[in-house]
Amino acid sequence: MPDPAATFEDVRTAADRIAPYAHRTPVATSATLRKETDADIFFKCENLQKVGAFKARGALNAVLSLSDEAADRGVVTHSSGNHGAALAYAAGIRGIPCTVVMPEDAPQVKIDAVRGYGANIELCEQFARESATALVVQQTGATMVHPFNNTDVIAGQGTAALELIEDVGPLDMIITPIGGGGLMSGTAITTRSLLPEAQIIGAEPREVDDAYRSLQTGEIQPRVEDANTVADGLLTALGELTFSTLTWANVEIVLVDEPEIIAAALFHLHRTKLLVEPSGATGLAAVRKLGDRVVGKRVGVIISGGNTDLSWLT
Amino acid sequence: MPDPAATFEDVRTAADRIAPYAHRTPVATSATLRKETDADIFFKCENLQKVGAFKARGALNAVLSLSDEAADRGVVTHSSGNHGAALAYAAGIRGIPCTVVMPEDAPQVKIDAVRGYGANIELCEQFARESATALVVQQTGATMVHPFNNTDVIAGQGTAALELIEDVGPLDMIITPIGGGGLMSGTAITTRSLLPEAQIIGAEPREVDDAYRSLQTGEIQPRVEDANTVADGLLTALGELTFSTLTWANVEIVLVDEPEIIAAALFHLHRTKLLVEPSGATGLAAVRKLGDRVVGKRVGVIISGGNTDLSWLT
Repeated sequence: MPDPAATFEDVRTAADRIAPYAHRTPVATSATLRKETDADIFFKCENLQKVGAFKARGALNAVLSLSDEAADRGVVTHSSGNHGAALAYAAGIRGIPCTVVMPEDAPQVKIDAVRGYGANIELCEQFARESATALVVQQTGATMVHPFNNTDVIAGQGTAALELIEDVGPLDMIITPIGGGGLMSGTAITTRSLLPEAQIIGAEPREVDDAYRSLQTGEIQPRVEDANTVADGLLTALGELTFSTLTWANVEIVLVDEPEIIAAALFHLHRTKLLVEPSGATGLAAVRKLGDRVVGKRVGVIISGGNTDLSWLT
Repeated sequence: MPDPAATFEDVRTAADRIAPYAHRTPVATSATLRKETDADIFFKCENLQKVGAFKARGALNAVLSLSDEAADRGVVTHSSGNHGAALAYAAGIRGIPCTVVMPEDAPQVKIDAVRGYGANIELCEQFARESATALVVQQTGATMVHPFNNTDVIAGQGTAALELIEDVGPLDMIITPIGGGGLMSGTAITTRSLLPEAQIIGAEPREVDDAYRSLQTGEIQPRVEDANTVADGLLTALGELTFSTLTWANVEIVLVDEPEIIAAALFHLHRTKLLVEPSGATGLAAVRKLGDRVVGKRVGVIISGGNTDLSWLT
């Protein structure tokens, strides 16, 4: 029997720890969607979170959990996306150094965003990010904060589901996007504790179905290379901690197709007036894919973030 | 001395009356904007309101205030925008007939939206809407619910500022878009009662500066014909009730230019992840226009709505 990466008590502790620095994000509903699905769908709006994504939760929990001595040496991670910005934000809160290793071909807008939160940027060749990160750890003694394969990060991500369940009450089903599995793992830990009977579902683009195949085969499958998905936040493969947690929690993966993801992002924009990044719209796409299985149900969906260049809009 | 159209007690009564059917919308802030403006700006997100606009508040209050006898005869209004949808929504809540008179050249998407809320649509020639509405009143005995020149509507709109002040505490300044002046009037009544010293500011596109000139000259100026503004929700001139209320409250108008409105709508989308209609983005445009006058201040801004075809985005 595999173990979860963290306990529900870890999630509760994380919730208290990050509360002063993270938003308690609102929950959105849509009467139109209720008619369409014949279900009550509750969207937890992590696109309205600090740095525009749930990643702020895990990064804050990891940074605020460090001993003073470790904190003084700073933190480092590799990320070209939301986790880099989140770690920079969290380090800024604590007033400690932060280095983010980014590929040298990362879009300038992403580099600027991370720098805007006060981090040092280390550019590296695309396949050298692990070694570049290790070099920073060696040189500075900084603590590496992995984007998802990290107990404190996972416990922090679990606070989104905690707030959602506290705010709307019992759910029959909870859905999150799945990339590296950090949000999914934290959500699973919270949900298994508070709602043992609830179905826990990961929404994954069919184009990057490695998590689906990992749970099917019982072995972590590598990330899909040269994937062509609009959900660019979900390209990552599972890690050992997240794989173990998802297996423990009996998470089911629902695969969604590219047009469905875009349709869901457009629905969010026009109907709930929320800018949702395509990765974050996979949850609604999964709700629709589930069809009859959601009828009459109360379904929580965590919108992961809202950082997007809108290239999918046209 | 002119009189306000409603009392603060009317607003409080409206708040209780509409509470079961209207969202208590969240308040958004932006650390980026705090740095830019050196002020604390609190956005009341009426784009997340039922029907996507604050108009739901006034329409609900008007419909729920009707006697049973009057309610049975239904309601009617003329509107090609959010008020039509809002009245249809409110009538649906009470289960009474609703007719919305719309110009025959109204976009099909708007006609469909109002019909989607269950209203009857009466199409009329562009300049015949008053007479077409009067005909419905004559034939059916329906109550005409004016989009803004109506005491119950104004009291209902005042509940947005009430919630904002309850949620964030005292403000030095409160800003709303100004078209016909219903939101502005309700906001002024609430604000003058709770925060007598606060500055109350209407944000108006320079292209349709009739409210500005009305308050300058002390006489209601007609709507600007052939105006070229992206803020299509603000084309209307003031009515007697709203003009009187704004004069009573000593409202100041700040004129904003078209590129400023679009820049503000883009800021909302990318930074706060909220879809805001251009009319609703005039508030942020006014904040920026005020520059030094907001430094160190606590400023409330009511985002009026989020219904837009995104044509301004490209």
